[in-house]
Amino acid sequence: MQSHELKLARHPQGKVRPSDFRLDMVTVPEELTPGDILVRNSWLSIDPSVRMRLGPTGPAGYLPPFRIGETLTGLAVGEVLESRDPGFEKGDTVLHIKGFREFAVVRQGSETLAGAGGVTRLDTSVHPPQSYLGALGSSGLTAYVGLQCIGGLTSGDVVWISSAAGAVGSLAAQIAKLRGHYVVGSTGSGEKVRFLLDELKLDAAFDYHSPDLVEALGCAAPDGIDLYFDNVGGAHLEAALYHLRTGGRVAMAGAVASYDADTAAPSPGNLFQIVAKNLTVQGFRAGAYDHLLGDMRAEVGSYLRDGRLVVEETVFDGLGSAPDAIVAMLQGRTVGKTLCCLR
Amino acid sequence: MQSHELKLARHPQGKVRPSDFRLDMVTVPEELTPGDILVRNSWLSIDPSVRMRLGPTGPAGYLPPFRIGETLTGLAVGEVLESRDPGFEKGDTVLHIKGFREFAVVRQGSETLAGAGGVTRLDTSVHPPQSYLGALGSSGLTAYVGLQCIGGLTSGDVVWISSAAGAVGSLAAQIAKLRGHYVVGSTGSGEKVRFLLDELKLDAAFDYHSPDLVEALGCAAPDGIDLYFDNVGGAHLEAALYHLRTGGRVAMAGAVASYDADTAAPSPGNLFQIVAKNLTVQGFRAGAYDHLLGDMRAEVGSYLRDGRLVVEETVFDGLGSAPDAIVAMLQGRTVGKTLCCLR
Repeated sequence: MQSHELKLARHPQGKVRPSDFRLDMVTVPEELTPGDILVRNSWLSIDPSVRMRLGPTGPAGYLPPFRIGETLTGLAVGEVLESRDPGFEKGDTVLHIKGFREFAVVRQGSETLAGAGGVTRLDTSVHPPQSYLGALGSSGLTAYVGLQCIGGLTSGDVVWISSAAGAVGSLAAQIAKLRGHYVVGSTGSGEKVRFLLDELKLDAAFDYHSPDLVEALGCAAPDGIDLYFDNVGGAHLEAALYHLRTGGRVAMAGAVASYDADTAAPSPGNLFQIVAKNLTVQGFRAGAYDHLLGDMRAEVGSYLRDGRLVVEETVFDGLGSAPDAIVAMLQGRTVGKTLCCLR
Repeated sequence: MQSHELKLARHPQGKVRPSDFRLDMVTVPEELTPGDILVRNSWLSIDPSVRMRLGPTGPAGYLPPFRIGETLTGLAVGEVLESRDPGFEKGDTVLHIKGFREFAVVRQGSETLAGAGGVTRLDTSVHPPQSYLGALGSSGLTAYVGLQCIGGLTSGDVVWISSAAGAVGSLAAQIAKLRGHYVVGSTGSGEKVRFLLDELKLDAAFDYHSPDLVEALGCAAPDGIDLYFDNVGGAHLEAALYHLRTGGRVAMAGAVASYDADTAAPSPGNLFQIVAKNLTVQGFRAGAYDHLLGDMRAEVGSYLRDGRLVVEETVFDGLGSAPDAIVAMLQGRTVGKTLCCLR
């Protein structure tokens, strides 16, 4: 059987371009080995973190970079076509990490990623399958863990969330709002600022292209902030350190400012604020918190069922559009969860 | 009565110089108001943090800067000459924050600083008075809190301590050693490296002037580190983020690299490591942990009594030498606790 797969054609020079990828046709083996499951992928998760695996070297301690000619991996949802694992049968909807291809041969106990754990059967009777890539998957887990475990969200805290119109940010912002916090969001365009205020009902929002980020945050949160949910790093983190109150926290989920930059993003020049104000800056990857997936799905799932959560998706059509999806997401041209639909 | 006091003559231009200070003669009131205590200072604590109060503006959230012509304050030990507070009597040895002057009028409930709490009577029957400025005072508390509360020191942790020949660093390094850890220290000269190895008995030590800090730390701790006790910031912090293992911690006690710099110290360019390796960077000032002073003195006091702790002091003689003491300390030319003796 023939399957299209998306491969890394070359390491990006500066910002990622669609021509850095290549679509190849490969042959999927006819015969499955015992334990194998053949899946037809239906939804691919397009995540900012893919950027860190495209260069010749990646950050220490992170997932290894892709090699030239290697098929990309990433979270995906698909339908089981054939199974030689007694725990799965034809027709099951499953979550796994062999995205970026039409057909995937997967098995339990292989590589894991946040919210995936090898291969997981999904209950799609209540929520649509792609929600397990977003609100009920790794985006939701990142938002939940960042607020709950890392941010130590406490009654009365003022929260700032960057990339608040993004997959993780839009969930973190709404969860914090639903828990009764004053929530400030920042994003990259006037249109997305209106989305934050009108759709997500945040208390304040601003465009990070404003000439003075420190001043913009000061206007949005005049009495300071207690928690900064950081998806960006760089100048955003600097503004947060400036406005955090004594004992404040930073939950660092990502540093998209440095992922796809032509030059290194400037680091905050005011790290001494961490000492002066007894601040805590803690980084995390949701993958280390898979044991909280059930708790997260209970809370976020109830919001979804009650219609209290706005779930925005930007969907690209077909595997051939995945390079465009990656580029658009990294350039901030998507809203909410970025997905690639293969059906 | 006449008393010499050290005043800020001008804000330093670049690095601090002795001419930035001025010694003035002032008159101490003959009659004490009820509640007042007249103290003759005998020991002044010379701390790196004084640097942050010499500029026209200081870091947000920190102690306010000194005004031109204002007498400096700082931790001091002295002898009560006269008391109109029933809790103190003539001859008591006390700790207070009105240093940088020969005679001080102090009272309970006024300004507090780490390990001071207004005015505190000291028991000098076992330990000499100046130890309450160092090992049993704010230096000891900073070392203790940084390891214990902020660093979450756990059995088997590999620890790196910068400024390890300094007041706080030399205590933190020795406490970690006495608790059985593998301890790496860094400092600013070959002579001080030998002090760390020969006197403090650290497992490894290096001079931070080495051409490649990342490589120097890598040689000293080939399997990585779990806790970085940061007194320096800048490139030191960058090297730590590079070598910290997953789940590692940074206890940020200070950022002396940026205190007395001609230009802004470069910030770490690898903050994404905090995300990639689930790191926690937490700042603190010992002043917020005064409630642990008793616990600290119990542990450190027992080491002192048993002769298991090397207490190094660099002593300057007379109030007139305080500007030289400040400059020498900031330039890394002192070892251990820097003190000014007024007797």
